[in-house]
This record gives sequence, C-alpha cells and structure tokens, in this order.
Amino acid sequence: MAYFQSKPTSGRHFLQIPGPSNTPDRVLRAMDYPTMDHRGPDFGRFGKQLLEKLRGVFKTSQPVVVFPASGTGAWEAALANTLSPGDRVLMCETGWFAHLWQELAGKLGLKPELIETDWRRGADVAAIEAALREDKAHGIKAVCVVHNETSTGATSRIAAVRKAIDAAGHPALLLVDTISGLASIDYRHDEWGVDVTIAGSQKGLMLPPGLSFNAISQKALKAAEGAGIPRSYWDWRPMLAANAQGFFPSTPATNLLYGLDAAIDMLMEEGLDNVFARHDRFAEATRRAVRAWGLEVQVEVPGEYSSVLTAVRLPEGHSANALRATILEKFNMSLGNGLGRLNDRVFRIGHLGDFGPLQLVGTLGGVEMGLGAAGVPHKPGGVQAAMAYLNGNA
Amino acid sequence: MAYFQSKPTSGRHFLQIPGPSNTPDRVLRAMDYPTMDHRGPDFGRFGKQLLEKLRGVFKTSQPVVVFPASGTGAWEAALANTLSPGDRVLMCETGWFAHLWQELAGKLGLKPELIETDWRRGADVAAIEAALREDKAHGIKAVCVVHNETSTGATSRIAAVRKAIDAAGHPALLLVDTISGLASIDYRHDEWGVDVTIAGSQKGLMLPPGLSFNAISQKALKAAEGAGIPRSYWDWRPMLAANAQGFFPSTPATNLLYGLDAAIDMLMEEGLDNVFARHDRFAEATRRAVRAWGLEVQVEVPGEYSSVLTAVRLPEGHSANALRATILEKFNMSLGNGLGRLNDRVFRIGHLGDFGPLQLVGTLGGVEMGLGAAGVPHKPGGVQAAMAYLNGNA
Amino acid sequence: MAYFQSKPTSGRHFLQIPGPSNTPDRVLRAMDYPTMDHRGPDFGRFGKQLLEKLRGVFKTSQPVVVFPASGTGAWEAALANTLSPGDRVLMCETGWFAHLWQELAGKLGLKPELIETDWRRGADVAAIEAALREDKAHGIKAVCVVHNETSTGATSRIAAVRKAIDAAGHPALLLVDTISGLASIDYRHDEWGVDVTIAGSQKGLMLPPGLSFNAISQKALKAAEGAGIPRSYWDWRPMLAANAQGFFPSTPATNLLYGLDAAIDMLMEEGLDNVFARHDRFAEATRRAVRAWGLEVQVEVPGEYSSVLTAVRLPEGHSANALRATILEKFNMSLGNGLGRLNDRVFRIGHLGDFGPLQLVGTLGGVEMGLGAAGVPHKPGGVQAAMAYLNGNA
Amino acid sequence: MAYFQSKPTSGRHFLQIPGPSNTPDRVLRAMDYPTMDHRGPDFGRFGKQLLEKLRGVFKTSQPVVVFPASGTGAWEAALANTLSPGDRVLMCETGWFAHLWQELAGKLGLKPELIETDWRRGADVAAIEAALREDKAHGIKAVCVVHNETSTGATSRIAAVRKAIDAAGHPALLLVDTISGLASIDYRHDEWGVDVTIAGSQKGLMLPPGLSFNAISQKALKAAEGAGIPRSYWDWRPMLAANAQGFFPSTPATNLLYGLDAAIDMLMEEGLDNVFARHDRFAEATRRAVRAWGLEVQVEVPGEYSSVLTAVRLPEGHSANALRATILEKFNMSLGNGLGRLNDRVFRIGHLGDFGPLQLVGTLGGVEMGLGAAGVPHKPGGVQAAMAYLNGNA
Repeated sequence: MAYFQSKPTSGRHFLQIPGPSNTPDRVLRAMDYPTMDHRGPDFGRFGKQLLEKLRGVFKTSQPVVVFPASGTGAWEAALANTLSPGDRVLMCETGWFAHLWQELAGKLGLKPELIETDWRRGADVAAIEAALREDKAHGIKAVCVVHNETSTGATSRIAAVRKAIDAAGHPALLLVDTISGLASIDYRHDEWGVDVTIAGSQKGLMLPPGLSFNAISQKALKAAEGAGIPRSYWDWRPMLAANAQGFFPSTPATNLLYGLDAAIDMLMEEGLDNVFARHDRFAEATRRAVRAWGLEVQVEVPGEYSSVLTAVRLPEGHSANALRATILEKFNMSLGNGLGRLNDRVFRIGHLGDFGPLQLVGTLGGVEMGLGAAGVPHKPGGVQAAMAYLNGNA
Repeated sequence: MAYFQSKPTSGRHFLQIPGPSNTPDRVLRAMDYPTMDHRGPDFGRFGKQLLEKLRGVFKTSQPVVVFPASGTGAWEAALANTLSPGDRVLMCETGWFAHLWQELAGKLGLKPELIETDWRRGADVAAIEAALREDKAHGIKAVCVVHNETSTGATSRIAAVRKAIDAAGHPALLLVDTISGLASIDYRHDEWGVDVTIAGSQKGLMLPPGLSFNAISQKALKAAEGAGIPRSYWDWRPMLAANAQGFFPSTPATNLLYGLDAAIDMLMEEGLDNVFARHDRFAEATRRAVRAWGLEVQVEVPGEYSSVLTAVRLPEGHSANALRATILEKFNMSLGNGLGRLNDRVFRIGHLGDFGPLQLVGTLGGVEMGLGAAGVPHKPGGVQAAMAYLNGNA
Repeated sequence: MAYFQSKPTSGRHFLQIPGPSNTPDRVLRAMDYPTMDHRGPDFGRFGKQLLEKLRGVFKTSQPVVVFPASGTGAWEAALANTLSPGDRVLMCETGWFAHLWQELAGKLGLKPELIETDWRRGADVAAIEAALREDKAHGIKAVCVVHNETSTGATSRIAAVRKAIDAAGHPALLLVDTISGLASIDYRHDEWGVDVTIAGSQKGLMLPPGLSFNAISQKALKAAEGAGIPRSYWDWRPMLAANAQGFFPSTPATNLLYGLDAAIDMLMEEGLDNVFARHDRFAEATRRAVRAWGLEVQVEVPGEYSSVLTAVRLPEGHSANALRATILEKFNMSLGNGLGRLNDRVFRIGHLGDFGPLQLVGTLGGVEMGLGAAGVPHKPGGVQAAMAYLNGNA
Repeated sequence: MAYFQSKPTSGRHFLQIPGPSNTPDRVLRAMDYPTMDHRGPDFGRFGKQLLEKLRGVFKTSQPVVVFPASGTGAWEAALANTLSPGDRVLMCETGWFAHLWQELAGKLGLKPELIETDWRRGADVAAIEAALREDKAHGIKAVCVVHNETSTGATSRIAAVRKAIDAAGHPALLLVDTISGLASIDYRHDEWGVDVTIAGSQKGLMLPPGLSFNAISQKALKAAEGAGIPRSYWDWRPMLAANAQGFFPSTPATNLLYGLDAAIDMLMEEGLDNVFARHDRFAEATRRAVRAWGLEVQVEVPGEYSSVLTAVRLPEGHSANALRATILEKFNMSLGNGLGRLNDRVFRIGHLGDFGPLQLVGTLGGVEMGLGAAGVPHKPGGVQAAMAYLNGNA
C-alpha cells in the first residue's frame, strides 16, 4: 500500500498542513472497531449521547447535525437549508476559502456580494455594518464569514460581526465557517448569535476527513421551512427527526462517529480552555520563529492572527512550492501550499490538533533547515526564539 | 465507549444486516493508518492508482468518481448531474429504496413516473419498454432502476432493461443503483450500457459507510454539460478534473480511501467470479433453510433472487421486529428490519461481504433458535438443510 | 504478509483450537498503542493497578508474577523457584501436557514419580493420597497437577487434591497448571490452598500468547529461599521486589500488558461467574452434538469434563488429522490435533474465550459438514441437538 | 486505560529512552491481526519464511532462534546452552548491562572473571587477549562482550575481540550481547566469528518488548551437546528441531512475530546500510548538540561512540533525574535514566529505531528547554548546532 510505504523506516511523517491534522492514536483505534448496526438499539444510545456531547464543542444548546461529507458539503447544507435562488448574500472575501464559498453560492443560484480584503486580515466588520445599514429593504438574506481563514491564517471577529448586524438592525442570518477553527480556538455558537456554524472533522476535532457539521439556531431552523433551493441529502428536517432518537436518515459514517466520540472525550479531558491556550502558545512561538528568520507573517493584524496555522511569506523571487518540496523530500514533513493568489508566495504551517511542544520544535526545525537547503535568504535562530518563548524565557 | 461494550466478552457480534457488512480486519487496519496530505505527491500517486483499480470493480473503462457521502448522496449526484428541473424520469418501484429514490427525484424538481411492483420481484422490463415506446416525444429523460433492492432481496435484470430501451429506440439515460449489489453479484457498467451507476462502500466493498460512487458513461458526461439542477458538491466536472492527477476538489475521506484500496485488493485476490459464486452459494443455502422452516422468501421469481440478502416473511400474526429483538438479545446478532410496507412483516438476512460458510451456519442457527425462542411457528431443520447444500450433499 | 492473506475474502477464520483462543478486538486494539517507558511514573501506576487487578482472576490476595514467556516458562519458574536438584515430585499423568511437565522436571534434575491415567479422566486423587501416606519420610517435595488437561479435555479436582494432601498430613507443595483453565472455568488459588498456580495469556484470558503467570502462596515463597535449582530469569525474588512499585526487573512485554489490562476489564464486566456459566453451557451443547453424531467424547467421567474444550474420538480406521485438514481447507476452521498417543485419534474443539452461541453453532456446523466431507461415519443432527440445548428446549 | 490517558491531547509522546524505541504504525498494525493456529500449515509457511528473513538482520547463514522473553532471557539461553556449572567465563564490564550479565552468570553457577572499565569506553581488547594468552590451560570457556552498552553509549569492537581470541589461539566461545545494537548499527554474526549473538525485539528491530534472540554458530551448537547447566525453556535443541518446519516447541508469541515480520520488511526496504548511516548521522548531530551546551558525553573514545544512544553527563551538583522529571512533565518526553553507578549522574538520549530528523530536532529541543527549566548550567545553541550538521552545513 503505497500510501504508507514511500518513506520506509525514516521515522514518523510530520503532517503540518493546516488540516487534516495529526490524528491521535486513540481516535484511530476507536475507528478501527467493527461497524455496528446503524438502526439497532445500541446505535441509538450511542448516537444520542454523541450528538449531545457534540454540542459542547460548539458551545450550543441547539441542534448540531453531522453529514458524511467534506466541509464544502456543510457549506452547501448551510446555504441550501436557509436560502432561495436569487437571494442576496453578503460575503467577506478573507482568502481562498471565502472565495470558494462565494463560488459555491453562485452555483446554487444565490447572488453573492463581496466585501474584499487584501487576504492579510479578517473580515471587515465596519464594511459589513455599512452594507447592512444601506440595505434598507433587507434584501440581503445572509452574512457569510469565515471564522478562521485557512488560506491566510487570519481570524475574523465573529462576536463583532454579530454586534454589527444587530447595530444595523438587520434581519440577515449569520453563517459562519469555522471548519478549521473549531476545537482549536475559541468559538461560541450561542453566545455569538451565529445562525449556522459550519465545521469539519479533520482539523481541531483531530479526526480524519469525512464528517462535516452544521450547528443550527432556531432562526435558521425557521428559515429552513421557507428555503427554496432544492435539497435532499443536505436537508436538515429528516436529519433532525431521526437524530431525536440517535439515528440518521441515511447510513451514517459509523466508524468516523466512533472516532468523533473518542476525540470529544480527549478534548474534554484536556479542557477546551487548555486546548485553546496550547494553540495560542504554539502560534506565538511560531510567529517568533518566523520573525527571527527575518520572514513575514501573511497576516498583518495582531488581533487577527490565527492560532491554528501560520502562513509565511517568501522573499520576492523565491518559490514557496520549491521550499515545500525540499522539506518534504529531505525532512519528511508536509506543509500547506499557498492557495489562489498566494500560490507559491506563502507556505502554511499547521500547528493544530493533537500536537505538542516537541512536535512544534521539530516542525520549526524542519522549516529552518529547509530554508537553508532551498537557498531562501533567512537568518538562523527561529527555532531558538521559539524555544525561548516556549520555555517561558522570552 | 458504549458502542463496543454493551455485550462484554459474549463473543463476536453477528452483523447480518444487508449492509453495512462485516468489515474485514485487513480493511479496518488499513483505515487505522495516519491521515496523509491529500495534496501531496504521495497522495497523487495513491489516488491515481486507486481510481484506476476501482474501475475494475465496476467493469468499466470510463470514469468512476468517489464522494465522501452515503449512498443517497450518490443518487442525488446521478440525478443532479444529468437532469434539469421538470424532467420526466421513469422509475421502477421495486421496494423501499426505489421508493426513496423517487422521493428524492421529487425533491430535486424532477417528475418521476412510477412503474409499480408488489415488492416481490425485480423491475418490470416489459412495462419499461412499453412506457418508452409510448413516449414518442422522448420526454422521458432517464430510466432509473435498482439493481439489487435491499428492502426485498430482488434483483432487476439490467442487461434486459438496456435491451428494452434500445428496442424502444429511446434516448433516455439508464441510471442504476447497485449500492448493495456491487462486488457481491455480477455487475457490468460498460457491457450493460449503464449511463450512471450508483454504489456505496458499506456492502460488497466491505468498507464502513462513508463513501459513495458514480460510474459515468460518455453519454452521461455529455448530459452533465446541459443539466440544470443547481449543483456544487456533487458536480462531476471539478471532480473529474482533479481526479486526473489523483486528487480531489475538496478534502477526500482519506482513511476510508485507504480501506477501499485494501478492499479492492482483497476482492481481486479472491477473484470477482469467485466472490459472486460464494454469494450465490450462500444465498441458495439460506433459501433452503427458509423453506425447511416452512417460511416464505419475500421474492417470488427465482431468476430474481438476490444473492446479497434474503428477506423472509413471517406467518400472519407474528412480529418480525419482536423476532429480531429476541435474536439480538439472546444471540447477539443484528438482522435487517422490514422497511416501509414490509415493516414488521419480514426480516432480512444479509449474507454478503467478508463472510464464510461457518458464519452462515451460525447466522442461520441464530435465526432458527430465535424462531423457537420467539414462538414463531416453524419446523426445525433449516440449518441442517443449509449444511447439506453447502456440503454438496443436497 | 502471508499469515493473513492465505484465504482472501472468504470470511472470518474460525480459530477453534483450545488456545490461543479468539482475541477480542478490544484486546487487540489495546495492544496496538505505542509502547511506553517501562521505567517511568505512568508505567509504575499502570503496573501496580494491573498486578492488583490480576489477583482477582486467580482469586488470590497473594502475589501473582508475570513473565514474558510461554506457559512452559511458567512451569519452569514454578519448579525452579521451589525445588532443588534431586527432589522427588509426585506428578499425575493426565495427558500430554502433564507428560511434558514431567519431562521438564527431569531436565531440571528433579525426580518425577508418576501416577498414570488412561488419558480419559482427571488426576487420581485417591492414588495421590495413598502415595503421600506411604511417603512417611516426606521425601516428596511437591505434588503437580494439571487442572485442565488441554490434550484430553479432562479437569482435575484441585480442591480434592488439597484435601488429600491435608488428609495425608503431608507437607508437599501443591503446584497446579491451569494454563488452559484460568478465566474459563472456576479456579480458586487461595481457597483451594494451591502453592503455585501456573497460567498463560492465550486461553481464557483472551490474549495472544507471550505472557505467563505464577500465583504464589506464602509457603511457596518460603520454599523459594532454599530452592537449589539455578535460576535467574525465573527468579521470583527480584520480580516481587520490582513489582512492589509496579515495575519489572527486566523489560516487560508492555503491549501485551496493555492487552491484559483490557482483557481483565472485559472479564470483570461480564462477571467471572457468568463467564464460567457460558463456558459450561457451550461445553454441554458440544457434547450433545458429539453424541448425536454417534461419536465418543475422550473423557469418560462426567464430573471431569472440561468446559474449555472437548476432545472427540474418531471411529477406528479414520484419521482425525485428515478430518482436520478437510475442515481447514473447506470451511476455514482450525481445530486442535491429538497430541502424543492421541495423535490422529482425536480432534479437539476449543469453545473458550471470547466466544458466543452463534460462533459455537458455526463451529459445530463446520465439524458436522467436515465429518461428511471426510467420509467419517456419523449421524447428522449434532448441530440440531446443540441448538435445542442452547435454546433451552433440550 | 491509564497508560494512554495521562496526557490527553497534548500531542505525541516522545519516547526517547534507548529502547523500547518508537514502534512504527506498520508494526503495531501488523500485531493487531487475529492470532492464528501456531500448529497449522499457514503458520508453518509463515514461520519458515520469517526465520529465514531474520538471518539477514544478523548477517548470518546459521540458525537464529526466537524466545518469547526479554533480552535477559536470551542471555540466560546463551550461557545455559553452552556452559556447565563451574566454568570460567571472561567478561568485560563496560557498564550496567555487562554488570548484570556477570550477576546472571554467577546465579547459574559459572565463574565470571571481570575485565573492568571506567564505564566510558568499550571492552578492553588488549586485556582480553592478555587474559586468554595467560590461560594456557584453556580453563576459560567463553568470552562475553556487550556490543552496544546501553547504559553508557559505548560500543565494543567485536571484530577486534575475535581477532584477539584467535591471536591468543584460545578455543573460548565468543558470546556477544547486541540487544540494543542490532539493526541500528553494523553487526556481522558470521564475518566476526561470533558464537552466540544475543538480541532483543524492542530496540533497532522497532518492536515492542517480548521477543529475544540467539544467533548460534556451529561451534556453539556443538558446545550445546555437552553443556551441563540444567535447561528446558531455553534449550536450543527442541527449538531448532521444530523451527526446521517453521514451528516452535511451545506456543510462540504469534502477534509479536507478525510485528517482527513487518519490521524486517521495513528495514530491508530502507536497506540496512541506510539504516546504519541514518543512526550515525543522528548520533553525530546529538553529540554536537551536547558539546554546544557545554556538557560532556559519557563515552570518551570517539571510535567507540554508539549511534544508538548518547549518555550525557551532568555538571557536578546537578541531578539528572530531576532534569528527566522536568522534561517529562513539561515536554512529554521520556529519556533514559542513569543506571548503577551512573544513577542521577547521566541521562541517556535514545536516537534509534523508527526515528527521523525532525523527531531528533524535537528531542534535542526538549533537552535544551529542559536544561533551562531545570536550572542546569548550559549554553544555548545545541539544537542549532545539530540542525547545522543535519543540513550539511556543519
């Protein structure tokens, strides 16, 4: 099986893309149990408990539904369940994933209106408020924001977006993609008044890809009754009906659900606040390394740095993709590529999920050695700077 | 973790529903490897090889696409990629899953026209031909048939359906659901002239649920260009573009793909013809057991018996669900329930996937003992009859 | 890897030898965790808890030591820790394993004295008592009995042996091999006054082979101080010293200990009495099948039937090994061979460990079909008889 | 299960003791397959192939036997099979493990004669030759050397020892412990004329502990015929007889053998020479880090540095155990403790087995941060020095 034999005995691969993250052994082993009858009483008990536990991760007391699908499926579900063809949606183009979301909206017959950024910061909250205030007729049906933009490493201030919508007195729904943010950085579906939260399994939840999520407010549920985009697979209504007894309308991805159960247990044993603090600490250490190398972090606004990943800009005339290829070849580490307009301009370091301080040191070491091996101008000392911070001596 | 602790030390659970089938250890262990970078060069090589191997299972040289989704998702993909709102589709209601497909078509804005059956046989080929001959204007855009109806245990003669369409000189597409048939019973996407084949991972492919498939003819690909149902997640076009290099447009369910790779290897090592013969043999043994008990097989047409599962009718006044509960409680075996109008009237024995003769004897023993324990009138000797057949002494 | 590819996709192998038994998934998955530092604080805590839990399985409050070794190693440990070259030991030759034990004693320089049987019953308690009464000089230093003779399926009455020793007023140590009995049938180290109990991992404890055990009375510990057989690896003293803190004097088989921990949890969740009752029930069902076939159980004394395995005699002129080869080839089931003088005369059915009623029905079905396929004269109906008993209708 | 829950979600544990080493997933997954019949034909084929493959790792065409036991068991086997009580054996006390070996020899009734060292170098070859020359009567029956002394990180020059024995014209057997050396650093059983090689599973072979090995010369086999230490479990003769058909005289540790099979495949895919070069490179990088910190490597002779592990001396007045506790607590890494007279004076860094460059950087980073956190005087820059070397810029 080629996928695990390509580098025999050369030690553990460092999977430092910003998701899928490193799946812990406990989750992999949970997934390795025999599939069970998804319509039997044991499954019903399991499903009910799991769906209940899942709410804790989103900090919500409202329903969370699970699709066997990638995160883009959960995006489609969010739009298809709440909107109708021709509806206007306000979208904040914070990066590549926000861009993809807008494309998706177009394919479903929606009319996206873009608030652009330079891909070096989070969503422009003031611009959102302004656009909504201007929309006296309330033609805008939803505001779509990416909480953690995986292509740039910028976070958007969701609580502030909520406040802006309220300040404008606008009834638009708030749809938030936290696919790469959930369970790595603070997220509060209820407190922040999000209507639909979109998430995936392969990031902070530490699972392999294959599951995605919608957390759903009462307002969104009500919108679902009148939404006009044709839908079946993504339809929340049969899902919620079956979920009430712990079941699913079509066959669920049982073994991934086993893994989800184990992953939530791990997160809760560590404590979500500890998980977030760990990510914050590793992200700060990473940025210190980047600066010590004399390189630039893609995000320019300190309050909007992501603790999930750090995108690093290469000096003009140097190829991020060549650097990544060198690091993969020589040091057995995968880093994230630049997406869209950032292709070859940045590389992305994932420091999320089941990840500890020495894995981070190894990761930064791989980057530092790779910069040397690939001939990218830089100063040594990044790892040293990160260690100094991690050790409380910064 | 409740899902594997409910029956401590009482031996291996018999998962004899008609899918998910028993996942072999080799597939589970393959899935238990660390997730890899789905955009890296190792994945590209792996993906290309896997997609190529996958064609062999469908007996096609045309593309097969893989969705992280349940089988119903692959249904939606088949319809959404080839049809437009308002299109008429001819559907054969062979049982519950055919019924669900028709509901789904309605939700997408299509106009299903039903050819009904009594749920005790495959699709009515003559009726299909008649309907198409009558449709001189070629308003019918697709004929939808379930190859292996999991709710009844009836197979439909797909080659004959193809012939009927051709005999009628009708240009309708032929869409076939072989979710529970593929890799258990003979199926030939190319030779039978199927335009879209719909399949899932958790049956003959011996995987946990979470992946589904479309095999796609050139004619279907062409239809995709003009199809008008809004689609994004299910859209074949970006999928095929990425697949050409072994990649996927959104994050694939990597660990399930590892399992798929192992499962195809197992099928090919045994040989598809041997796999089919094994299923045929176990199905005949099962029917002999049913008859020995004095019970009735749901399907009435010998040429349309499924080798994947056998649905068994209970005598009037007896509850199939009570029987199943007794068997689960006393013998740690899950059987399939009756669906739709067959609820509580039949139970279904899955004899598919990674399944050997002694597992079959145990399965039939559990049914025979359960009939006794639940007070269902029957004659003993079913297991004996099955063993006589299996041993070549029938 | 040849060991799991030889029968691709033909379903689960039935491992019905009388040990190694079928290892449950939960135990295999526990063993699949990364090895930990066997000298670190986490291990110390784990080791202490595990050694404490382990006592419950032996029904003792005295020490139990664990060797990375097969069961024969634990035999050697029992003798080497308590005896000196030239010591006389009274041994009961109940079958092949008792015979091997005697050979082992000879190799260590002991003088075994044999009480023979016809290999169709347990140890002759009256003969033990007589021999001890005759030994006025107390030259006999130990009485060695096999609790569950795996080669014949006979159990010896250990409590009665203890009583016989006491009645004779003899100070000999009582050494008992319950390698294949422990955790399948009742065993009481303390209550029965056993001095050294010898056990292994791969039978009722449901683990793979690789660990073996000595439970040790105070009297045996005292004997260890004066014992003269040179010993190092097997020496209890450094073992007990390290065990006090949860550690081991040389590197323990860490991953097998993980599995042991999981296995004990499973046994305690089911409850040892329930485990024993399950084995008794399956053994009685098996004997009923054997009699229905018109064959003979090797053991002749009903009170000494083992619930762990059943050895079945073949009619004169028929080969048990040919039968076993047929069953392996046609039905993918491994049965135990006849050992020593029983080679080719009996086959042995293991019905121990992680084993449920439908696995038993499949096992007996494989034997019944195999008898037919191999041309061994028999009457059909064995499986039927077993099912009637299992279903409470006998 | 306490052994894997103590540090929830804080990332992967760094197991950097000098064995057990980090077991690769491929080996763990191989061990996770169901146990098979150790007396059946599939096992015979598997066993024969495995025993054959195993010889390649020892670079021998002579037999290699496998015991379910720790490495100390294989020591005992080497002595017990070749020597008789009262025999004189020449032993080189290179460190704690050599010391234990001498203790063991004494327990078996042998008369060890010691050639001491200061535990900072390999065996004194000249002293060996001198002692043998002096032994005109050939009373010394064996020379015992530790190839890779795990307590100090010193290697002994085995080829030179062989030459010394030959130069002295002495018939003593050469017994070599390469428990921690095999499959990490160069070892040649045949070419170096070793009579018994002793090895274990949990070091360079990348397995969990539980298996140990003897590679056996013809001369040693001949000695086994006359050896007088009582032996049964360790006896080579029944082992070799059974091994000829791929079987074992008592139940083998089947699942560990699965892992061994996978591990040998991995080593051979990488190529033993590449494996050795990788270890050499990581060891040199480690020593550069140690020197950059201003600390001292325990071994003083450059030609005798081990590439398996590096023992590092602490400045006077500082506790190596306190340092290790700090590193475990803060950085989730296990390091080896000082043994015997080196307790608390050194800590040992294992850089063996399934180990890559970024794991090494993380490991050294953990040490460097730990030195700071524990207040051990040192200069920063060790990681930097190691990286410079690893990157070819040294």
